[in-house]
Amino acid sequence: MPEPIGTAAVLRSAYSAGELTTVEIADRVLAAIGDPTGNPIWISTVPAAQLRARAVELHERRDELAVLPLYGVPFAVKDNIDLAGLPTTAGCPEFAYRPDRTATVVTRLLDAGAMLVGKTNLDQFATGLTGTRSPYGRCESVFGGGLIAGGSSSGSAVVVAAGLVSFALGTDTAGSGRVPAACNGIVGMKPTRGLLSVAGVVPACRSLDCVSIFTHTPDDAATVFRVAHGVDPDDPWARPLPADRSAARPPATLRLGLPRAEDLDFFGDLGQRDRFAAGQDRVAVLVGETEPVGLRPLFEAGDLLYQGPWVAERLADLDDFLRSRPDAVLPVTRKVLESGRRYDGAQVFRARHRLQELRAWTDRLWQRIDVLVVPTVGTTFTIEEIDEDPIGRNTMLGRYTQFANLLDLAAVTVPNGFTEAGRPASLTLVGPAFSDTTLIRLAAALAAEPSPSGPTVSGPTAAEPTVSDPTVSKASDASDDDRVLLAVVG
Amino acid sequence: MPEPIGTAAVLRSAYSAGELTTVEIADRVLAAIGDPTGNPIWISTVPAAQLRARAVELHERRDELAVLPLYGVPFAVKDNIDLAGLPTTAGCPEFAYRPDRTATVVTRLLDAGAMLVGKTNLDQFATGLTGTRSPYGRCESVFGGGLIAGGSSSGSAVVVAAGLVSFALGTDTAGSGRVPAACNGIVGMKPTRGLLSVAGVVPACRSLDCVSIFTHTPDDAATVFRVAHGVDPDDPWARPLPADRSAARPPATLRLGLPRAEDLDFFGDLGQRDRFAAGQDRVAVLVGETEPVGLRPLFEAGDLLYQGPWVAERLADLDDFLRSRPDAVLPVTRKVLESGRRYDGAQVFRARHRLQELRAWTDRLWQRIDVLVVPTVGTTFTIEEIDEDPIGRNTMLGRYTQFANLLDLAAVTVPNGFTEAGRPASLTLVGPAFSDTTLIRLAAALAAEPSPSGPTVSGPTAAEPTVSDPTVSKASDASDDDRVLLAVVG
Repeated sequence: MPEPIGTAAVLRSAYSAGELTTVEIADRVLAAIGDPTGNPIWISTVPAAQLRARAVELHERRDELAVLPLYGVPFAVKDNIDLAGLPTTAGCPEFAYRPDRTATVVTRLLDAGAMLVGKTNLDQFATGLTGTRSPYGRCESVFGGGLIAGGSSSGSAVVVAAGLVSFALGTDTAGSGRVPAACNGIVGMKPTRGLLSVAGVVPACRSLDCVSIFTHTPDDAATVFRVAHGVDPDDPWARPLPADRSAARPPATLRLGLPRAEDLDFFGDLGQRDRFAAGQDRVAVLVGETEPVGLRPLFEAGDLLYQGPWVAERLADLDDFLRSRPDAVLPVTRKVLESGRRYDGAQVFRARHRLQELRAWTDRLWQRIDVLVVPTVGTTFTIEEIDEDPIGRNTMLGRYTQFANLLDLAAVTVPNGFTEAGRPASLTLVGPAFSDTTLIRLAAALAAEPSPSGPTVSGPTAAEPTVSDPTVSKASDASDDDRVLLAVVG
Repeated sequence: MPEPIGTAAVLRSAYSAGELTTVEIADRVLAAIGDPTGNPIWISTVPAAQLRARAVELHERRDELAVLPLYGVPFAVKDNIDLAGLPTTAGCPEFAYRPDRTATVVTRLLDAGAMLVGKTNLDQFATGLTGTRSPYGRCESVFGGGLIAGGSSSGSAVVVAAGLVSFALGTDTAGSGRVPAACNGIVGMKPTRGLLSVAGVVPACRSLDCVSIFTHTPDDAATVFRVAHGVDPDDPWARPLPADRSAARPPATLRLGLPRAEDLDFFGDLGQRDRFAAGQDRVAVLVGETEPVGLRPLFEAGDLLYQGPWVAERLADLDDFLRSRPDAVLPVTRKVLESGRRYDGAQVFRARHRLQELRAWTDRLWQRIDVLVVPTVGTTFTIEEIDEDPIGRNTMLGRYTQFANLLDLAAVTVPNGFTEAGRPASLTLVGPAFSDTTLIRLAAALAAEPSPSGPTVSGPTAAEPTVSDPTVSKASDASDDDRVLLAVVG
């Protein structure tokens, strides 16, 4: 079984110390992706010769390490993000096209020295939160046991969790950058809309789409975010990060919102309920003060996405394809997309008006608190369980994520140990637009803090997951701040 | 014929000097509105006893003059703005209701000492730019001759131009705060969306609606704007004026955009063409530099309003009424509103996506220039001419105004003399969101500057309008900076 690739921070230390070369990392990556796991995480990979050539080029430029923040760091991108030279499928072979240009956000990462390995599986057209809606196969969580990988950025989360790359890009409209992080025990950062360019990304809901970042550590997410963000003239949705918001606020100065118990629904999963209770306590000790917060306006906003007129936004770009090639679209995806046809123009505006009222409510919330902590998902499902009710259980998975982009929020998802049943738990720190760096800093403080029941990221149950797969093993990986990382190879 | 009420600045001087009392002004206002002109400018007026009581109350509080910036200043509001005690009709008697609460923006003016006189006629549901779409009668411009007053804030513009009040509130979605200013030779300020509360205002397109200000002078507009703006928790669309944008930039520091000649269409009205050429030259000498600017992306954005899916936004609030009481709605208004039914949800989102591209284009424009000058209207029409083609000519009237709210712009309309045919000319200064005070300051500089052909506001042709009405007369009114004002009483 291939040795997991380290974090960007670990690789940087090793490159700096002369203990590692980009060529060695490229060879390890190639060995790992050549080792079939049966998990359909890749849709396409960069040809081996091309990856090696990139590694050689970077090796020859090793004196530029100081100015290349992602020097020699291997990464993957979700296959709805363009890379010149490989097709973009968006999870639909009949939709695939060969882009002339690489997406701006990918170019920024490459310019910073990163090495692109390949393009990952996803729920078709990034529509779904399960990872099971793909003709390229249904991804399983890195923890095995038939657990879903979560979606829509299923492959991107697994390739990071499995240690095949240091980081990956996903996209996040309803929670696609957070749910898969939860299902795979990693960090998922959903930046504020407009900070990472969506030029060269297949649209889901253009007004809401974000590029997201999967990493093992909040520090790595911070590094990738710093490189990846920046106003792109080719992206009409781009927004600059205001200068007065670019510095992270220290956790001790923050007011933390804690959800009222009656607003939390774990869909009967008491293990997740207990993990969240423990997790929010761990966040609470890091901040200045806490305040109870009602979540119902957030849920109402979130319901506009799949249970409301925003489904029609998905049709804005896809309807022609859907009408001309209906059989090319998976039945469940088609059903979701076609539900957008029942909304007329006035209904869209009416929902937009209601959303404005909910945004105003949320704006007032940010006068009382700086960060809100929520479960990432209320419960987890196996692939079989999703098959029993693919739309209803998808909706459950989105409960705590789908409001974020509608309400113009930023979010960082972090692992929160495992339930007694061995399922991964996760929590998400949510803040107003442009709170990105503050959220990452709080996530880093949380990751650095030993939890009452053991190390944060792995946790005692993580060390012995009861939902396991014969191929799952663990390996420790000293990060730059000496905390213990679990790299689980699927 | 009643003597015209002065500007707010003139009244303030007179009150300060003890030369005038609020009771005297109230009596003059009551005499003027009791003097029938045949022009259906009012829908309702505050009962005489109530206005007198307000004047007496203010007279007793005359020691508060220093802290009441609108002490004793009479004003009117368009009848789609709530005032507790009078019905709100929105230009439709069957729609009328009696509000319990006064609109926030009106309360702010009253709290500053202003005296509300009455509620003015408008195009039904603020849908239209002509002033001819009202069952309460069709307003004529203060210049008479059968010229339209412009709409939808027809009555508010005429009551100011006629000297019956010092200022009036209108609303502006497609240009309703600017076109009537152009038709009546006064100042019309359309603030940045969200700065003046729309709580208690009948919605037209909620995502675009603004409360607007009609005055004789830019200085008065600045005073009213200062009092009227402010975040209202009851208005979900409210936005604060950023602290770093609240100070006006000096005209000499500004870069002015001048429309390329090939983008300007005066619909064959050479008089308006010549006036605009002269007017933009007058603005150009006040600024630091000028640059030619193409207007086509602005026009494309503007066409989304009435020729695109934003008509469906008007249905979001009105469709139930329209379906249950179709005969209560004027045929032309009904036709416009019903055209919103042909848009489906996906079309709305597609148009929103295109608008975002046009907004991005506009954002880049504001990196090159600070202010753009455009004609307010390309030509003017008589009521008869509107009747010949009520929808087509309405569209012509909106050419240079209807893009502003879609593109999140601020605008200040100022008089620009008269054509040789005696029609009023007008130009509009347009800037990005939150440029309001900079635009007003530039407008004030323009008003203070003698034009090559005579005083700015009146102009030689204004002194002898060839389109005239027997009831039109003129009076001079020394403003606080000694420039000559024309107050035309209709």
